[in-house]
Amino acid sequence: MDEAVKLSLDEAWTLSVDILEGHGYSAAHAAAIARSVVAAQGDECHSHGLYRLIDCVRTLRHGGVDPRAVPEVIDQAPGVVRVDARGGCSLLAFETGREHLVEKARSYGVAVLAVNNAFHFSALWPEVESLAERGLVALAMTPSHAYVAPAGGRSPLMGTNPIAFSWPRPDGMPFTFDFATSVVARGEVELHRRAGKRIPEGWALDAEGRPTADPTAALAGALLPFGGHKGSVLSMMIELLAGPLIGDRLGHQTQPANGSGEGTPQHGEFLLALDPRSFLGPDAEARLQQAEALFEGVVVQGARLPSQRRHAARERSQAEGVAIPAELYDELVELRDGDGAQP
Amino acid sequence: MDEAVKLSLDEAWTLSVDILEGHGYSAAHAAAIARSVVAAQGDECHSHGLYRLIDCVRTLRHGGVDPRAVPEVIDQAPGVVRVDARGGCSLLAFETGREHLVEKARSYGVAVLAVNNAFHFSALWPEVESLAERGLVALAMTPSHAYVAPAGGRSPLMGTNPIAFSWPRPDGMPFTFDFATSVVARGEVELHRRAGKRIPEGWALDAEGRPTADPTAALAGALLPFGGHKGSVLSMMIELLAGPLIGDRLGHQTQPANGSGEGTPQHGEFLLALDPRSFLGPDAEARLQQAEALFEGVVVQGARLPSQRRHAARERSQAEGVAIPAELYDELVELRDGDGAQP
Repeated sequence: MDEAVKLSLDEAWTLSVDILEGHGYSAAHAAAIARSVVAAQGDECHSHGLYRLIDCVRTLRHGGVDPRAVPEVIDQAPGVVRVDARGGCSLLAFETGREHLVEKARSYGVAVLAVNNAFHFSALWPEVESLAERGLVALAMTPSHAYVAPAGGRSPLMGTNPIAFSWPRPDGMPFTFDFATSVVARGEVELHRRAGKRIPEGWALDAEGRPTADPTAALAGALLPFGGHKGSVLSMMIELLAGPLIGDRLGHQTQPANGSGEGTPQHGEFLLALDPRSFLGPDAEARLQQAEALFEGVVVQGARLPSQRRHAARERSQAEGVAIPAELYDELVELRDGDGAQP
Repeated sequence: MDEAVKLSLDEAWTLSVDILEGHGYSAAHAAAIARSVVAAQGDECHSHGLYRLIDCVRTLRHGGVDPRAVPEVIDQAPGVVRVDARGGCSLLAFETGREHLVEKARSYGVAVLAVNNAFHFSALWPEVESLAERGLVALAMTPSHAYVAPAGGRSPLMGTNPIAFSWPRPDGMPFTFDFATSVVARGEVELHRRAGKRIPEGWALDAEGRPTADPTAALAGALLPFGGHKGSVLSMMIELLAGPLIGDRLGHQTQPANGSGEGTPQHGEFLLALDPRSFLGPDAEARLQQAEALFEGVVVQGARLPSQRRHAARERSQAEGVAIPAELYDELVELRDGDGAQP
């Protein structure tokens, strides 16, 4: 980063809340979104960091999110809680349902939180990690818009459909992963296009369903799923669990908000929580310790655990704050102070 | 298949039961195993078909399975049922717990069946499909012995760790997948070795952790996970859910039975069941119909649904029976009639 602006986490928080509230998000939504983007920025996940505030404002302007929606909690079944986001951002809906999910998982051993009708832009790892911090094992998935072709296919059908998992560790940060089921994020292709670079073989198809190394053709075509047929069916599972099972849309039944009023960006999210203490009773601590043998087995052979870099960045950010490109900072200040923002 | 022997499904069943009971499996275990291997053979999944009877007898001879174990059902939590296989084969344990799982899923919306201390050799799709036939959505996973290196690593740590999923369809066979989280099954490498063929790049490492195209070196080294880091962490999730979470072993804490008495092949299996009717109430039928749009979206662009070939084979086998290599048939007859078999 040639020109960077350093912000303390407090400054990043205030900037985020000011932008969001200034454009009409309720205090509750602004806080939930700020928690997510500041956490991502602090973990140096730039693609889900402060940069996403621009998306939150643009989607609002295009009518793709209700910035003041009050999520509604529905006690769907003993092991299932639904939160209807009512067209608002998914993050407040998740926060509204989280303690219900925790309580159900502790009571029944396993429980599901279904978030419905939500505008969703965030990473899933802050959510599953927040459940692991409460001692639960958590799995989350959500569809996105149709950008990915099924393996063996020619045209976009599934979302980039991320899946995230978190496991509580007795001494330290949870074991957490969060990955898109496409080979790469769409943003990676966009970065190649901006840089005038070709994309590697195996990433994407053009609009005619032919393999392409041209990022512009790829953006007009389809990404490919990771891991061939295996990743493709995993992505289909995510569509089904976070779509029809919870009474919500499939990826290809959504579109980004586009200002025409025709965008239907809202969709669902599926979260599963498992309580080790319900599964194991007094053996829970010993079994969580046993799991450490797996993590040690990875590290001892020189391989990395997922989130290792992210957790290291978190420690740095808590001490030193975050750095964002000066250009992004200027854009965010303009968003805070410029036309459309309300004092 | 140059020389094949045709068997009706009834003949395949009788041959399987006779071999298993003749070597000491209880009638209940013999029936559960026969159901699995005949179903796999009928679906032309040769690697999990009648061929596996040889493995069931060899493991028994090596002390790796208790052929008369009576599974014990433990009502662990409202949403969790455990079945302790007590050193017996996983299949009878699953069948013993299945209706408990179904009942819990229907009562709570979501439930888990944990199978513990089981000898496990079978495919997972017959299990998840049997749950989908009861109207549930099902996900299953199990570790195997340490054959797979983590992405970025050098030596075997995880099992080939299959994951299977099944979704009920209103008109027709469930949408089902079942795949190993290694790039290929170990059996594929073994087949290359027997045929004197090299294996493709990206399948395996040798004992020093270097990429290898030599199947013998690969069998002494480690397979690689599918899909790089993403498949690798998914495999770790399977180790955790079907291991420590349910009070059972990690893959590297097991070994195949080897006759020395030191083999500890038993491990766990994790099954999750979700009840669409609990999630959706009166909307369930309409939402299951909505999911068909995803399957149609795959088929219409010329891609295949998982299990399509298997389901077509099932129809053929029900009409015409199954064909197995003459050499395998002779080996099975020898196993039924020869030394070690009891009349």
